[in-house]
Amino acid sequence: MSKEASERKAEGKKTYDLHIGDLNFHTAPQIVQATIDAINNGKTTYAPPRGIPPLLETVARVVGEERGIHYSPEEVCIQPGGKPIIGKFLHCVMNEGDEVLYPSPGYPIYESQIDYLRGVLKPYVYRETPEGFVLDLEQMRSQITPKTKALIYNNYHNPTGHASSDEEMAAIAQIAIEHDLWVLSDEAYFHFVYDESKKNRSIAALPGMKERTVILITTSKSWAMTGWRVGAALGPKEVIDMFAKLTTNDEACTCHPLQWAAIQTFANPEVQALREVMFQELKARRDLIHELVNQIPGFSAVLPPSTFYTFINVTKAMEILHITDYEEFRKRILHSTGVSFCTREHFGASLEFETQKYIRFAFSGISQTDIREALLSLKKFMDSAQIPN
Amino acid sequence: MSKEASERKAEGKKTYDLHIGDLNFHTAPQIVQATIDAINNGKTTYAPPRGIPPLLETVARVVGEERGIHYSPEEVCIQPGGKPIIGKFLHCVMNEGDEVLYPSPGYPIYESQIDYLRGVLKPYVYRETPEGFVLDLEQMRSQITPKTKALIYNNYHNPTGHASSDEEMAAIAQIAIEHDLWVLSDEAYFHFVYDESKKNRSIAALPGMKERTVILITTSKSWAMTGWRVGAALGPKEVIDMFAKLTTNDEACTCHPLQWAAIQTFANPEVQALREVMFQELKARRDLIHELVNQIPGFSAVLPPSTFYTFINVTKAMEILHITDYEEFRKRILHSTGVSFCTREHFGASLEFETQKYIRFAFSGISQTDIREALLSLKKFMDSAQIPN
Repeated sequence: MSKEASERKAEGKKTYDLHIGDLNFHTAPQIVQATIDAINNGKTTYAPPRGIPPLLETVARVVGEERGIHYSPEEVCIQPGGKPIIGKFLHCVMNEGDEVLYPSPGYPIYESQIDYLRGVLKPYVYRETPEGFVLDLEQMRSQITPKTKALIYNNYHNPTGHASSDEEMAAIAQIAIEHDLWVLSDEAYFHFVYDESKKNRSIAALPGMKERTVILITTSKSWAMTGWRVGAALGPKEVIDMFAKLTTNDEACTCHPLQWAAIQTFANPEVQALREVMFQELKARRDLIHELVNQIPGFSAVLPPSTFYTFINVTKAMEILHITDYEEFRKRILHSTGVSFCTREHFGASLEFETQKYIRFAFSGISQTDIREALLSLKKFMDSAQIPN
Repeated sequence: MSKEASERKAEGKKTYDLHIGDLNFHTAPQIVQATIDAINNGKTTYAPPRGIPPLLETVARVVGEERGIHYSPEEVCIQPGGKPIIGKFLHCVMNEGDEVLYPSPGYPIYESQIDYLRGVLKPYVYRETPEGFVLDLEQMRSQITPKTKALIYNNYHNPTGHASSDEEMAAIAQIAIEHDLWVLSDEAYFHFVYDESKKNRSIAALPGMKERTVILITTSKSWAMTGWRVGAALGPKEVIDMFAKLTTNDEACTCHPLQWAAIQTFANPEVQALREVMFQELKARRDLIHELVNQIPGFSAVLPPSTFYTFINVTKAMEILHITDYEEFRKRILHSTGVSFCTREHFGASLEFETQKYIRFAFSGISQTDIREALLSLKKFMDSAQIPN
């Protein structure tokens, strides 16, 4: 999609980037300055595979405080982004033929990594209700067998924007404990929660969970640093030791000067204040999309309590256009309106029992002005499609 | 060793770092400035998984010109360092149970990655002659079976400092072609060749080799950027496409602002001039070590034609000290003289037919003054050890 969108722009056609989960915000100047200082101070040599000690201490302290869990620096491994943690987690906890529960729709790397490592795909699903999406706990339970080894949980969820209630999170923890599962808690969107009652929750903080959970954090989304590639895994020491060993063999270390800069990312109050400014802007975009998208014939969306995504039910819109194929729908809209987005199928293969069709709008990389224009363009197109020829 | 050396220093004991293959040179200011410019220009978002087009073009052109090979940008994949290329190469070309030839002694990651991916270890060896090390082609040939799939070749070789003659390289190419092997050509030390007749050689440039070879390059050593983590794989498009797919799943991309800086690394003439200054200093260190080490009882070393390592025969020194175990020898010397180094066993498991004992001195991170002191300290220790009590 990025390529298609770029090609359209190169042809001079107005294109609205609602497909990308990247951010149109600048990285904080304090982080930039810290990078420059680190380079000038000669922090350009190898770093320890698990990360530089002051960053390990900072991450252990800040991530622990935010979630109400105690972590020591020995329970942290710095990584070149959040993504490497997915593969490493699976390398650590599963063997060929083991089953892994993961969200579908979900971040596509879960499915591709489980599959690549010859695990057995066990997707669990979300149901849309008038109050928002809920995780289908019954369906999740039905997927579990004695060969199920791990559960990937992405609260605050890409692409639905779902945030678990305390009850739902407790039920998932219970399932993990009951079936002795390792849990990867992908917390990439931890700082993007609009519903106060659902903020600052980590499943690792629940009783019996810390010892079986690896938390994935990343600077990518929270601080508009997607291209910097700095993240961290937090978990039981024996797993983190394995992460360090894998890092020694796979990458040597995470970029050394950026690790010094990352201390500012986590610990500098001015940087957190800038993050709050970005958060408020994202909230305004979310509210604007919610208002406008529900005025478009065939489009309906619940208000996402977290992330910077809106998962939109387009079952009726596809019926109006007499389209059953996701790619055909996506391309028709893109070429008719300039609106670029992802469909459900960018987040794992569709499951056979799905009856509703969804697309995802990302509002991380688009201004409110362009959101208005994009959704007006879309509305015009769908309004005219409704009129019989 | 790094930990032991650090602990000694913390206790106020003078320690000579001859163990580390890291560099005590500053990264060129042009590269630093390009990093700052890239950050300020907003190059902080995701980059394409294979790398930014201008860097792909630069790497294809410069690496090709240096070696006399034509590469197109589609045959390049930027990586977060040289190391990730080893694992990815093996992921691409071998399956469980396949045999892989690799140098022993050699960079330890070859052995650990082949083993981790359940390949069969097929070490090939080097023989010491009065003229230097030579690769034992007969022994290499004897290791090959119909299950041999790949050959890892590290010309300019860590830890021996060996550089192939044109005849030796041609013979290796012939073996690869005859047995239809994939080749990983680890060229991390490409710019550190002191013997003019062996400079600028890549096995990929030989007839029939480009289509079966992946070249590993890295900014780490050539430009004193070990902690930056920028490297690149060059090879046939179908393999590079697989590298890009693995990168999408494993890392997303290599750090975006550093990719803009890396263009300077490869293409800026001022940066290459600074590399030449570093090279001349390393050459002086090499010559100094060569002169001094051969004056130490029980130590003998041939002059390395490449890299920044000297591989020292200590068979007699161990006999003088009545030590048969490498670790005991290393620790005795470290604690008696402050000289910190790696032994043969840091570069893969010793092979049963080995009769000679070796250690490696790295002269990349130590001044000439400290080299003199270190080798004087070592000489005094060995001189006194020779005198019967």
